[in-house]
Amino acid sequence: MAEQLVVGIDFGTLSGRAVVVRVRDGAELGSAVHDYPNGVREDGLWALQVPADYLEVLQHAVPEAVRDAGVDPADVIGIGTDFTACTVMPTTADGTPLCELPEFADEPHAFVKLWKHHAAQPQADRINATARDRGEKWLGRYGGLISSEWEFAKALQVLEEAPEVYRTMRYWVELADWIVWRLTDNHVRNACTAGYKGMYQDGAYPSPDFLKALHPGFENFVTDKLDRPIAALGTTAGGLTEQAAAWTGLPAGIPVAVGNIDAHVTVPAAGAAGPGQLVAIMGTSTCHVMSGAELRDVPGMCGVVDGGIVAGQWGYEAGQSGVGDIFGWFVENCVPGSYYDRARDEGVGVHELLSRLAAEQEVGEHGLVALDWHSGNRSVLVDHELSGVVVGQTLATRAEHTYRALLEATAFGTRTIIEAFRASGVPVTELVVAGGLVRNKTLMQIYADVLGMPLSVVGSEQAAALGAAIHGAVAAGAYRDVPEAAEAMGSVTRGVHQPIPANVEAYHRLYAEYVELHDYFGRGGNDVMRRLRHSTSG
Amino acid sequence: MAEQLVVGIDFGTLSGRAVVVRVRDGAELGSAVHDYPNGVREDGLWALQVPADYLEVLQHAVPEAVRDAGVDPADVIGIGTDFTACTVMPTTADGTPLCELPEFADEPHAFVKLWKHHAAQPQADRINATARDRGEKWLGRYGGLISSEWEFAKALQVLEEAPEVYRTMRYWVELADWIVWRLTDNHVRNACTAGYKGMYQDGAYPSPDFLKALHPGFENFVTDKLDRPIAALGTTAGGLTEQAAAWTGLPAGIPVAVGNIDAHVTVPAAGAAGPGQLVAIMGTSTCHVMSGAELRDVPGMCGVVDGGIVAGQWGYEAGQSGVGDIFGWFVENCVPGSYYDRARDEGVGVHELLSRLAAEQEVGEHGLVALDWHSGNRSVLVDHELSGVVVGQTLATRAEHTYRALLEATAFGTRTIIEAFRASGVPVTELVVAGGLVRNKTLMQIYADVLGMPLSVVGSEQAAALGAAIHGAVAAGAYRDVPEAAEAMGSVTRGVHQPIPANVEAYHRLYAEYVELHDYFGRGGNDVMRRLRHSTSG
Repeated sequence: MAEQLVVGIDFGTLSGRAVVVRVRDGAELGSAVHDYPNGVREDGLWALQVPADYLEVLQHAVPEAVRDAGVDPADVIGIGTDFTACTVMPTTADGTPLCELPEFADEPHAFVKLWKHHAAQPQADRINATARDRGEKWLGRYGGLISSEWEFAKALQVLEEAPEVYRTMRYWVELADWIVWRLTDNHVRNACTAGYKGMYQDGAYPSPDFLKALHPGFENFVTDKLDRPIAALGTTAGGLTEQAAAWTGLPAGIPVAVGNIDAHVTVPAAGAAGPGQLVAIMGTSTCHVMSGAELRDVPGMCGVVDGGIVAGQWGYEAGQSGVGDIFGWFVENCVPGSYYDRARDEGVGVHELLSRLAAEQEVGEHGLVALDWHSGNRSVLVDHELSGVVVGQTLATRAEHTYRALLEATAFGTRTIIEAFRASGVPVTELVVAGGLVRNKTLMQIYADVLGMPLSVVGSEQAAALGAAIHGAVAAGAYRDVPEAAEAMGSVTRGVHQPIPANVEAYHRLYAEYVELHDYFGRGGNDVMRRLRHSTSG
Repeated sequence: MAEQLVVGIDFGTLSGRAVVVRVRDGAELGSAVHDYPNGVREDGLWALQVPADYLEVLQHAVPEAVRDAGVDPADVIGIGTDFTACTVMPTTADGTPLCELPEFADEPHAFVKLWKHHAAQPQADRINATARDRGEKWLGRYGGLISSEWEFAKALQVLEEAPEVYRTMRYWVELADWIVWRLTDNHVRNACTAGYKGMYQDGAYPSPDFLKALHPGFENFVTDKLDRPIAALGTTAGGLTEQAAAWTGLPAGIPVAVGNIDAHVTVPAAGAAGPGQLVAIMGTSTCHVMSGAELRDVPGMCGVVDGGIVAGQWGYEAGQSGVGDIFGWFVENCVPGSYYDRARDEGVGVHELLSRLAAEQEVGEHGLVALDWHSGNRSVLVDHELSGVVVGQTLATRAEHTYRALLEATAFGTRTIIEAFRASGVPVTELVVAGGLVRNKTLMQIYADVLGMPLSVVGSEQAAALGAAIHGAVAAGAYRDVPEAAEAMGSVTRGVHQPIPANVEAYHRLYAEYVELHDYFGRGGNDVMRRLRHSTSG
């Protein structure tokens, strides 16, 4: 008898990945990746994408994954998806992207604004100032600060800079929801992006009065551009349309789960859907997601959303805006050619070489402490005008010393987040790591030692796509809810990296140095970083 | 009629240089360099030299310089020398180095301890603690701290670690004085090294009581090992011996000036022998020397010595322990191979390329501020456990940005020294720059802009050797005193680098950032640097 299967589709920043998963146990039977032909159009703080690229993933990656699995597509009983967020665009009433209308083909504001489009900072600044002035209650749910990356800041930028685009659009839609709309012809919004990116809290978006205070033309933004039902994660958005069945080669009519965010679907993939299980998805940046039984305002977190990760629990999200990208920047900009030569001679990568040289050092041997804010600080301080610091370099400092100090700095950054959760009464009982950086054993040991906790490692190398598939299985009714499906289909190995007591002790002292510098530079002791961003002779 | 000539001999760290100079106007007619065959024997904090190497300079570089000048050696009327300091060794009563005795051929303590021998830090720490406890008056003349580089710390190390060497030696002698002893058979001590390196103040060395408190066997160190006349700079130590005449090819009997230090002889070479004319000799490290009309205690200076630079004036000395070596460290350890490739393609050095890229930036454009303590802090803070800091790096930071920030940090370091002089009532009216870094025009412009002063540049590229020759001319009676000789023979170009008002203004703000970090990390706000030096898990 044929096994029941589900398909998960993970839409990343540069490509989409489809995976075919066995419902019974989460086994990944096949997968395929499709690069977006147009990639990212970046210019300064702008970052745009072309929506047609996502449909190609449906047309290419899904059928290839099914072929790769060697299964009968007729056995696929459900589909789940996840997307980067907040990645958002304007559409007509039927979901046509405005950038596909001839009159807007050359209008940047008609395209997809990718999560890392940061050009709406002035709008975000006004949203924050106005919300503080008016004492908007929802502000506390976001650690006191709304990001320029999110729905309202990006929409306000459109209104102010391209009013015709704003007037013409019927919907301002997260791509997480748009892709599900394309698959089902049903336009619903998922509780996750609505909550984390759309400030939807306690059953409502920000009020018309508040929006009017930002801009008179923004008063009815919610009713004019967002007004669609909000659906719980793991529920069904609708059945696969004939057209989408033709694109994907999957059976028409099978249930498609409501949309979701890449980091958040990783939680069930890691079998970590319970309260206190913090999942860190570590790549270019790190996203921390965790459910909690109770609502607490945690200062400096990205957001807490009812049902934001798992329906029925409070979903907490935090993040470090720079992790892998700091290591990448260092290797590209601060490492002499001799290390490249040596790595090539040894047949390894430069990261691998530096990590090995870092691992040979005793804790503290390099005499350095760094702050990991090269890409700003997303959580605890929530300040993108902060920047990096290295203290302690001497003429004897070598690349592997500073490299290790930067690895450690990001571990200290994770520790500040975990301590902020705990200090606010949100327990953190386990740390599960996922993402590309998990392969760096030196880094993992440093995290275990800095945090004084064993690390659990997610079992899948394509955890987001697996997590999307898990949501597809729940939408298809194969499991009662996401936690039950996570238990059966998710995969994690516990205690992979164990803290070494002597190192824990040494890092305890170094962490105290980090905290002192963190508070000095980040909490007003010395606002030099902000001043440096604005001081030139020109 | 033949022109009168003098010969200056500059003993550096790796080689000695002789120059033949016209007495009338300081014209440099010929020169030659001789590398020390044994170089520097470095091992950890140790740095030793072999005294026979210096005699080779007399035998090779002097006759070559005369040949290079195409002059008749019979026209040479005087000789002056300068040496690194405190560079010191034990000798017998006739000046034979103990390392040349068979029984001490393998004893490191019998060799020359070069200025950068830093292994006597424990002894220096005890000297400082004891001097503070006893309220020794001379301590204030050295900014409150004696260096491990100086005569007493190094001698105490010999006493404690090689008592037979200590017992056997009749003299503990600066090489500045030993080389003059070899030239004249007359063992006198110069006021400069006696004052700056031997704590000779107000006509006396530290007292037997003090020395006994350091070590019972050290009580009679001064009377047993140092007891020689102290001669003023520019006076005659004696006439050239027959043997030295044979070595050098110069006329026997011509006057040889008393010894001196390389940095200090640069002052007359720059025509800057007057009060308020600060000469900065900028190379691996920077030495600041200046005469003042009155005695002031300047906190954190290296020393103030009566007649220490010019007889009859108070000689002030300060320094930055890391300047060119920080730039060198950066280029060697923090610059990607692509810059090396590009420099090679353009046929320039990496420093030259980075300096050009640095010059293209507006002041403050890089968004960085650094502390220049990679090699510790010699003046103002006098703490060799301090270390480097860079604040403000982001993912957009490139090598040329950090490079410029380090150039600027050393300029800020010079500004703190100048401001310390001024705050203590010692006027600084002119800055004259000398040394290898003077060739870097980007660096010079940054110094002019940071200091808000035009820079005068020393005319000679071998200013120390010229300065030695000037002392030789005074010793020979060709001029009344060193200032008169400096006026005629020294050479300086005024106003070479002019401050740019907009940059001065911008640097005024950045300097305030430097000062805030300087005081935070250097004056007890956060002693993290000292703690980092002593924290390892091992």
